[in-house]
Amino acid sequence: MGPLLKEIRHSPMLWLLVTVPVVFVAAKIAPEAHTTLFVLSVLAIVPLAGLLSHATESVAAKTGDAAGGLLNATLGNLTELVIALAALRAGEYTLVKASIAGAIVTNTLFMLGASFLVGGLKYHLQEFNRSSARLQSGLLFLATIALLMPSAVAEVDSTSAAAVTQQLSLGLAVLLIVGYGLGLLFSLGTHREVFSGAEHAEPDEAPWPIGLALATLAGVTVLVALVSEVFVESVQKAAEAFGMTPAFVGFIVVALVGGAAEMASAFSGARKNRLDLSVGIALGSASQIALFVAPVLVLLSYVVGPLPMDLQFWPGAVVMVLIATLTAMFVTNSGRSAWFVGVLVLMVYAIFAMTLYILPPALQ
Amino acid sequence: MGPLLKEIRHSPMLWLLVTVPVVFVAAKIAPEAHTTLFVLSVLAIVPLAGLLSHATESVAAKTGDAAGGLLNATLGNLTELVIALAALRAGEYTLVKASIAGAIVTNTLFMLGASFLVGGLKYHLQEFNRSSARLQSGLLFLATIALLMPSAVAEVDSTSAAAVTQQLSLGLAVLLIVGYGLGLLFSLGTHREVFSGAEHAEPDEAPWPIGLALATLAGVTVLVALVSEVFVESVQKAAEAFGMTPAFVGFIVVALVGGAAEMASAFSGARKNRLDLSVGIALGSASQIALFVAPVLVLLSYVVGPLPMDLQFWPGAVVMVLIATLTAMFVTNSGRSAWFVGVLVLMVYAIFAMTLYILPPALQ
Amino acid sequence: MGPLLKEIRHSPMLWLLVTVPVVFVAAKIAPEAHTTLFVLSVLAIVPLAGLLSHATESVAAKTGDAAGGLLNATLGNLTELVIALAALRAGEYTLVKASIAGAIVTNTLFMLGASFLVGGLKYHLQEFNRSSARLQSGLLFLATIALLMPSAVAEVDSTSAAAVTQQLSLGLAVLLIVGYGLGLLFSLGTHREVFSGAEHAEPDEAPWPIGLALATLAGVTVLVALVSEVFVESVQKAAEAFGMTPAFVGFIVVALVGGAAEMASAFSGARKNRLDLSVGIALGSASQIALFVAPVLVLLSYVVGPLPMDLQFWPGAVVMVLIATLTAMFVTNSGRSAWFVGVLVLMVYAIFAMTLYILPPALQ
Repeated sequence: MGPLLKEIRHSPMLWLLVTVPVVFVAAKIAPEAHTTLFVLSVLAIVPLAGLLSHATESVAAKTGDAAGGLLNATLGNLTELVIALAALRAGEYTLVKASIAGAIVTNTLFMLGASFLVGGLKYHLQEFNRSSARLQSGLLFLATIALLMPSAVAEVDSTSAAAVTQQLSLGLAVLLIVGYGLGLLFSLGTHREVFSGAEHAEPDEAPWPIGLALATLAGVTVLVALVSEVFVESVQKAAEAFGMTPAFVGFIVVALVGGAAEMASAFSGARKNRLDLSVGIALGSASQIALFVAPVLVLLSYVVGPLPMDLQFWPGAVVMVLIATLTAMFVTNSGRSAWFVGVLVLMVYAIFAMTLYILPPALQ
Repeated sequence: MGPLLKEIRHSPMLWLLVTVPVVFVAAKIAPEAHTTLFVLSVLAIVPLAGLLSHATESVAAKTGDAAGGLLNATLGNLTELVIALAALRAGEYTLVKASIAGAIVTNTLFMLGASFLVGGLKYHLQEFNRSSARLQSGLLFLATIALLMPSAVAEVDSTSAAAVTQQLSLGLAVLLIVGYGLGLLFSLGTHREVFSGAEHAEPDEAPWPIGLALATLAGVTVLVALVSEVFVESVQKAAEAFGMTPAFVGFIVVALVGGAAEMASAFSGARKNRLDLSVGIALGSASQIALFVAPVLVLLSYVVGPLPMDLQFWPGAVVMVLIATLTAMFVTNSGRSAWFVGVLVLMVYAIFAMTLYILPPALQ
Repeated sequence: MGPLLKEIRHSPMLWLLVTVPVVFVAAKIAPEAHTTLFVLSVLAIVPLAGLLSHATESVAAKTGDAAGGLLNATLGNLTELVIALAALRAGEYTLVKASIAGAIVTNTLFMLGASFLVGGLKYHLQEFNRSSARLQSGLLFLATIALLMPSAVAEVDSTSAAAVTQQLSLGLAVLLIVGYGLGLLFSLGTHREVFSGAEHAEPDEAPWPIGLALATLAGVTVLVALVSEVFVESVQKAAEAFGMTPAFVGFIVVALVGGAAEMASAFSGARKNRLDLSVGIALGSASQIALFVAPVLVLLSYVVGPLPMDLQFWPGAVVMVLIATLTAMFVTNSGRSAWFVGVLVLMVYAIFAMTLYILPPALQ
């Protein structure tokens, strides 16, 4: 427990862990205080996500390059997966889908753009591995096309298309997981030298002992799952109280909460002129959610959810994912960055956030 | 006749030529056996397309670089043109359009992706001429925009727009042919050194004597035309028997049958690490269909068809052509390839094939 | 006055200045002769735009690099702004929007494509600063996404969305102006060495004395404003007389008239193998209209217009702006150009012009 306690003592963010028990007590005492429960659960998820991310990296560091890469690639977005599973069990399919699309867009635009900006404010010009960015953009592009199809089919005919959409979504989910697996084989296996040093640079601190890391991984995952249930129950009501639209909450708020830990790593990498790391985290995380988390949720919905989930998204969300992918392709094409590139990417994100904030709920 | 017989003896694919007379006999005896006629006509078209392609190359080799390039560029997709003309004469406009869009998408995604994959399985990294790929992608992009316009106009107002669409299609057809001609002047004429060695590498076998080549060209074209009529008459009924949607048949089956000979050349080039050749055949063939075959069919429809044909495609087909073009632009941008690039491109094709296979016919 | 008179004597285009008084007289005598007034006002605006452009450059040359760049960047499209203001005051919102979208598309496609073509007809291969083209394309891409949002929102629900669209447009306008300002800070300030020599090469002639330049700037602006009022009043009626659709007039005719002076500079740069200058004028002008002129018009509409103006454009116009931006991104990506690149870009413009010319007015 030594390293864990030391980590907590030195990292102000982890002091927020005190809110974890507070959430459970509050949920028992005042189950109708949605706004309070929402704020408390956000404050609890952020440090838990940080611990989860650190534990995953520690286990990955111990198990060697390929296995470690694989572990990072499957558990790297565990927080997002657990939150989405809580929403899935509650039958909140709109929230699940909004949070998937929102996480892709937020990682691609906000995490990438802010990394370029904080890096660019310190360094005049920064360089990064183009091959790695191209691979992740390509995977994102594939996922975007897959998300486009069910929405396009449903757009044309909304009555008879439900069964077709479900069948198509199942096929696409399998195809995306296969694509993700082959992408890992490519980047961690056959062509690893092309992407060397790009994605999984060593963590800044010494890794934890393997026993502690595994125990933290297991224990914290359970805690995130429990807090997520409170979060999912309270988020919609709290959003109304704050005057936010459901789309804004799912797209922006949930995505920022779920990705807080990765963002901290990406920004810290950018400030150390290790933009490879930042671009790898931002785009790798986005493609992981699109090609792994989302299809896994479709498959799990047959077991966990009240009804099977499909991949048919709100057309506006599909357009935003498509534009985010094209933006990432465009700005990473040169392998160089300066502060204004970050501003440009953040402004695209601001346009989306503004539209979602203003949009009347009926249109979503 | 010596070289022709020798070629047939050494190429197993050409043994299928025995099915050519069988098709004609079967069509006389059992005109209602659609499934059998469909299978037989596919088996007959594949070797005929191979002969046609070889004869064109032989004539091109004799007539010198510029004239040969021009010949290849106009007769290179003769099989597709003849099949489409048979469908045009039968008034099967939906089949014509599906086969045009399908040939563009299949050449751009399947032929290019499979070339990258078979090449990448043998060689770690392969390089190709970026300028040539950029030119073909640019031409494809132009054609895609041209296809977008009539569909967009018709989308807005479907009643009064028929005459407008027809007039617009005629103008666009002329513009595309002019663009195609200027593109040939550029790549074979004023700037040929930029594209040198890219597209028209020497055929593997010795070319045939010019007399034999011309006679084969004429004779086989007539045979393809006759078999195509059987094919066009049987394809829709056979598709129903196989449980395939009409869109899947036009887009995937007809495109694969029509392009079989070119695919053999493209894959063989990739396996010999001559990816320039493969990329040139795949994208060159796609842009030729988009900028030459399709507009020529519009013009010929005024003479041959029961009604003039326009360039208004099913919106889903336009989206697929657009995505295929963007995919080609993206993956050929770096001028380098590895096996996973092929997988990525093939997966985009698989997403389209899956959607078309599942899509209820009413939505197409 | 010496330099001004000398300039007029040596530049045949400026002889057209004699039409300026003729316009005012004609508008008094025959206010119903729309076609004549339209032709006269076009003939008057072209030389005035040329003088305005020269005066701006002269003031910019006197005030030093950064301030001069800023001046060019704000007053560079003064003609377009003054014409649009005249249309705004007359409540002709459709004309204002068509002329904004048309100016973006015309500068991006016609001015850029024709520069590539006239340059390429004289030089075999031309090179230009990719960084500058990438920055302008990126800004255009940002503006395109901003224009997409209000149209997308309005598309979904046209009844209750008016207030939402207005609010969103106001937010987007502020965001675009901030983006434009930061882009200037980047290209003229922190990273000016990256873009050096690209955009603001010295004018060919000696700059005018500052007093004359400022007086010309003020006086000619007033003249353009007065002629624009005649132009705006006559353009629609004249268009009908010529059998042109309103969309064609706003998109093509007004854009070509407003940009005539810049086009002359861009083409002259291309013919002198200074393609940096041509690309800078074409894309810089397009991004200036998208990120500065259009949002400023939205803000000014609260003061000047009968009603506030929003950023909701006709969906076809948004698609054209998007395609124009993607085309610019694609063709400037390599930093090299030849004559056929110009042909390709001009053909995309021709497709748009053809569609707008043929389109029945009801669909616009």
